[in-house]
This record gives sequence, C-alpha cells and structure tokens, in this order.
Amino acid sequence: MQNDTFLRALLREPTDHTPLWLMRQAGRYLPEYNATRRRAGSFLALCKTPELACEVTLQPLARWPLDAAILFSDILTVPDAMGLGLYFVEGEGPKFRDTVRDEAAVARLAAPDPEVELRYVMDAVRTIRGALDGRVPLIGFSGSPWTLACYMVEGGGSDDFRQVKKMLYARPDLMHRMLSVTADAVRDYLNAQIRAGAQAVMIFDTWGGVLPDGHYQRFSLAYMRRVLEGLSLEREERGPDGSVRRVRVPSIVFTKGGGLWLEDIAASGCDAVGLDWTVNLGQARARVGARVALQGNLDPMVLMAEPAQVQAEAVQVLERFGVPQPGYGHVFNLGHGISQFTPPESVTALVETVHAYSREQRRRGAAAVSR
Amino acid sequence: MQNDTFLRALLREPTDHTPLWLMRQAGRYLPEYNATRRRAGSFLALCKTPELACEVTLQPLARWPLDAAILFSDILTVPDAMGLGLYFVEGEGPKFRDTVRDEAAVARLAAPDPEVELRYVMDAVRTIRGALDGRVPLIGFSGSPWTLACYMVEGGGSDDFRQVKKMLYARPDLMHRMLSVTADAVRDYLNAQIRAGAQAVMIFDTWGGVLPDGHYQRFSLAYMRRVLEGLSLEREERGPDGSVRRVRVPSIVFTKGGGLWLEDIAASGCDAVGLDWTVNLGQARARVGARVALQGNLDPMVLMAEPAQVQAEAVQVLERFGVPQPGYGHVFNLGHGISQFTPPESVTALVETVHAYSREQRRRGAAAVSR
Repeated sequence: MQNDTFLRALLREPTDHTPLWLMRQAGRYLPEYNATRRRAGSFLALCKTPELACEVTLQPLARWPLDAAILFSDILTVPDAMGLGLYFVEGEGPKFRDTVRDEAAVARLAAPDPEVELRYVMDAVRTIRGALDGRVPLIGFSGSPWTLACYMVEGGGSDDFRQVKKMLYARPDLMHRMLSVTADAVRDYLNAQIRAGAQAVMIFDTWGGVLPDGHYQRFSLAYMRRVLEGLSLEREERGPDGSVRRVRVPSIVFTKGGGLWLEDIAASGCDAVGLDWTVNLGQARARVGARVALQGNLDPMVLMAEPAQVQAEAVQVLERFGVPQPGYGHVFNLGHGISQFTPPESVTALVETVHAYSREQRRRGAAAVSR
Repeated sequence: MQNDTFLRALLREPTDHTPLWLMRQAGRYLPEYNATRRRAGSFLALCKTPELACEVTLQPLARWPLDAAILFSDILTVPDAMGLGLYFVEGEGPKFRDTVRDEAAVARLAAPDPEVELRYVMDAVRTIRGALDGRVPLIGFSGSPWTLACYMVEGGGSDDFRQVKKMLYARPDLMHRMLSVTADAVRDYLNAQIRAGAQAVMIFDTWGGVLPDGHYQRFSLAYMRRVLEGLSLEREERGPDGSVRRVRVPSIVFTKGGGLWLEDIAASGCDAVGLDWTVNLGQARARVGARVALQGNLDPMVLMAEPAQVQAEAVQVLERFGVPQPGYGHVFNLGHGISQFTPPESVTALVETVHAYSREQRRRGAAAVSR
C-alpha cells in the first residue's frame, strides 16, 4: 500500500503525520457528488449501483490527499435487506415502509445473506478496492445494532425515540431479541465487507448517546461487543515479491454522545474509538489512549468559518492529543459527518493544516528528545 | 411554608423524603392543560395571561403531591421582549420574525426592563405565589444566554446549529457581545422573578451540550456564571409570629448533555446541578455531590412503560444516589421535559414510588446507623 498511515495509527504504530479522513467525505458539499447523484436518479440508486458508489467514493480523494477512503453506502442497507423497505423522502431523511414494534414483527426478522441481499455493497467494495489500487486503505462500515433498531422501530428518524424506548422499557426481552438478530446481521455484513476487501471497519453508533447510563452498556455496547467478537479481523496482503501475509483489519467504534462511557467503549474489543467534539481529546487520551487509538474530533461546524479559523481549531485538536508517544494513535476526523453546507475550501485548509502541523509537531518532538 | 423539602434538598439540608418535580410538569400530557390552552387561544397567549399561566401552573399540583411548582412560561420570552418577534407554528416549534446574525443586529440588542416588557411574567409569578399560598415553593427560570443565542441566531430550532456556530467560530467577538447583553437580560429577568416571589431559580442550558469542550466553558458556562454572580439570591420570609427573616433562593443550572463538564458546572456558583439520564447519578454524586445538590435524572421515556416498570426505574435512580448523607442533596426529576405523550398514570406511579421509597430508604438507613 502506498499510504498505510491510517491503518498504522489505528494500530497505535508510529506514523510520520496524523492521518485524516472525514466522516461522510463523499457527500453533498461536493458539486461532483451532486452531479453523480443526479445521474443515478436517487440516493438509494447511487448506493445500489457499485460503479457509481465507487465513483463518489473516490471523488474526495481526487481533491485532497486524504489518508483513507470510506465505502459510499448507507447505514440502513441492513434493515432494508431484512425486508423493511427503505426509502427516502426529499428533505425528510430515511423512512421504512414497515416498522418493527411487536412480537410478530421481531419474530419475522432474520439476518440477511450479505452476498445475496447485500451483494451490491460487496460489489461496491470490490470495485472500489480495484479503483483505489493500493493508494489508501478502504474503510467498510455498518450501523450499530442499537442504532439500526432505532430506525427499525421508529420507522425513520426521531426527536425523542419514543417508540424504541417504549419497547426497551416495556419489553426488554423483545428488544434483546431484536438486537440479537440485528447484531448477527451486522457481524455477517462486516465480515463480508472484509472478505470483499475492506481494510478497516467502523461501527457507527449514532444513537447510543440517547440511552441512559446502564442501558447504554446493556442495549448498545453489549451488542457492538458481540459484533466485534464475531468478526474475522484478518486479511491477506500480497507483498511486492508476491508473498502473502496476514494483517489485522482494525475496528473503530463511534458512539456519538458517548464521552462519559469511554472506558467501557475502549474495553469493547475495538482497536479505536471515535470521539465527538464534546470530548476533550487530551483527557480522552489520558483515560483510554494507552488501550485504543482515538479518532476525531473537530466540530464539523468549524468548517463554516474562514480558512484561518479552520486552521486554528484544527491545530488545537492536534495540540490536545500531542505527539503520539509509542503505543498511542490518533486519526484526525470530524466529530460527526461533514455538513452539506461546507465550503470545499475549508476542507483544503483542514487537510493542509493537519498534515503539515502534525509533521511539524513530530519534528519538534524529535528535536526535543535529541537535545 | 407547608412543604419546603425541595428547597432544603437544594441547600443540601436533611429531608425526610426525596423531593420531586418534573420539568414541563404543566404541559400537553394533561387534558386540563389542553383545555386551558384552548381557552387561551394559543400557547403564547397562555404564557402572556397571568391568570391562565397560574391556572396551568397549579394543575399538576392538584393531581399529585409534587414538591415544587414551576412558573408556566417559555424560555424565549426574553428574546421576544428584546424585540425579535416570537411566534409558534403548530408542529414546528418556536420561530423568531427577526434573526441576529450580523454586527448591526447585535448592536441593536438591549436588555429589556423585566417589569415593563416582561411584566406579564412577573404578574404570573405574583399570581401563582398568591394561589400557592405557601403549599410548595415556586421555581422561576430562564434559558441560558447561550441557549437563547442559539434561537436568536438560528431564528428557531436547529438540527446542526450551523448559523450560531458559524458566528461563534467566525466572529467570536460578536458572539461574546451578544452573550454579554443576553446575560444581562437573563440576570435582570431572574432578579425580577425573585423580587416577584420566585423561591428558587433554574437556568435551562438546553443547547450547551452541542458545544465542543473548551467552547462550552467559554461561550455557555462563563455567561451562566456571570448571571449567577449578578443574582440577588435572597428573599424575605415572614414567620408564623410575623417576624421576617432573610432566606436563600437556591439556583439550579441544567446543561443538557453536560455530563462531561460536571466539575466545571458545579464550580459555577450554583447550588444545584441538573443532570440528564446519560449520567450515572452515583458517579455524579461522587464527582460533585459534596459541593452541589443534584437534580434528576430519569429518562422521560421511562414513563411510556407500565407503572411496574416506571417504579423499577425510579427505584434505580434513588438507589444510585443512595440516602443523602449530611451535606448531600438530591431532587428527583426527569432528565428532560416530560413528553406530551406521557400517560398521567405513569406520573402517579412515579410520584408514589419516589416519595414512598425514599422515605423507606431513610428509615432503613437510620435503622442501620442505630444498630
């Protein structure tokens, strides 16, 4: 691989700069993305057409020297493949034709065969790997069981998570059954992505942070742990001499709003923990940095400001983590997906700052050591 | 006062049970509230008619032996009084006719005279105090400067707080100016409520939790601290013999999503800290319970389940805090406003459980001590 900085940071190995990618980096803030989406006809068609998914996956890499690509897809492909009928209403977000709110609906759930019902995702992974041609690693991903359950029960987004929490509090047995099937589905889905070529995997627990302490651990984290335990986190890599070696596929868990539970998340079996911007990265490093790499955590709204301010805020994130000492790892990212309203110039300033400043930090660090 | 348990818990004095009130306890889940609101014609008319505001304030107390009343009003009365033109669109939440997004708009802002522009609120406080007739204390409240600024800049609710964060990152000077005026307005507003008869005050920092660590402290907490420093937290109380003594008006700060910053909030000068349900109450007590009382923190969605489950979850909250030792105080509450979809029977179960179980806890605690 030409640039494996991202993978090395996740495994807490030394890197010469802090690697950087952006959640939702292939998205609506890019005119070229919108053009491809128009050609596809709809967001869902874009997800389901491997060539077009590959095209948009590569677009941000053509603009900026990002250190990773992430599969272009949606977290709701899994419940869609479970037969719930995903659709999108312009300006309203995702919806499901069927919701899962009772015993009978939970009983009907089954983990799909990812190479059949989610074949288009695996084809996209294979196509993207081919197109990337070893430039940077490809990240595969899934929603967390709890986050998927939120959408499956609510039938779409929610302000108060009333239906899914009602099920959790009134019928914890049913909720556990649902999460159990969903965790199997997520495990199979991520394993298939790894077999198809994903070089790292990330679990997006977008809604774990709406749970009370205690319930988060039982209803979200426990099922992510079960997923992680079921993953085959190894892949074969062919060296320049044709020899094959087995390398680790690092895993990242990101619970938005999970800052209070960092120690628990770090003990889930993942290699790295994603952080939103409410967490002080220096404190997070002190709490769990010796056990897992950390990914984050710039507020995406910083990118609404001018390049000079983007630079100042990015430097602050890098300074808070400091130079990664041996056994520590930091992947720069936003604390949430990039906004569709982001001016691309802000991303230019961000990428340049993170790469240049983190190299400079290491030089200063090395100079300090050799003095 | 017949029942001052709430005030004593806030001041970390001994109580014979854990006092309880519910954020938004006068609200749409009560048929009698909806009837009064229909009579008023609109939510805003209800807020602006002291007799009707008094009527709905007392409604939950007629149903349940709650330990406090809270002024029925809206956090957005302050920017409304600043001339921004508050209105409500059914099903869409609050909106402002004018937004504050540039230098000129910020320059036009001035703290209103609460006895003039917000006279209807002070009249409501006086009316409610009269009607309560010393049964339980009356809580006055305001939005935090940052939370008010969110609405003032966005012009209503927001998913991403793009405009207000853009101002914060791009023009921190302007944001500080705006927060400074707003903090003066909040200070004057709360002081006027205290003069009108409020016996405790609470600052709702609903949107502090959307800020990054560091910026929260500078743009939200610093202005709440400034408000607290400017409050005259004393009132006169007439004893049964006609003698007058000066008593403290306790203050509560509630930052939703502020669990990571508990130590900072506890050092802001408030008497009590409100907690949402993501925080473990036992851990919060260990972190800051010797310095401030704690208020919270049941997930409001627990009330969607059956009474038996409500009971079990409420007991868990009480058990996590444990029996308040000398110098510790706990006020039971939800971690956010009660949902309009709450069955009133759930509140019945909650109130009975909190009162009975907390008395039982203290008896068991006392028995353990005397053995």
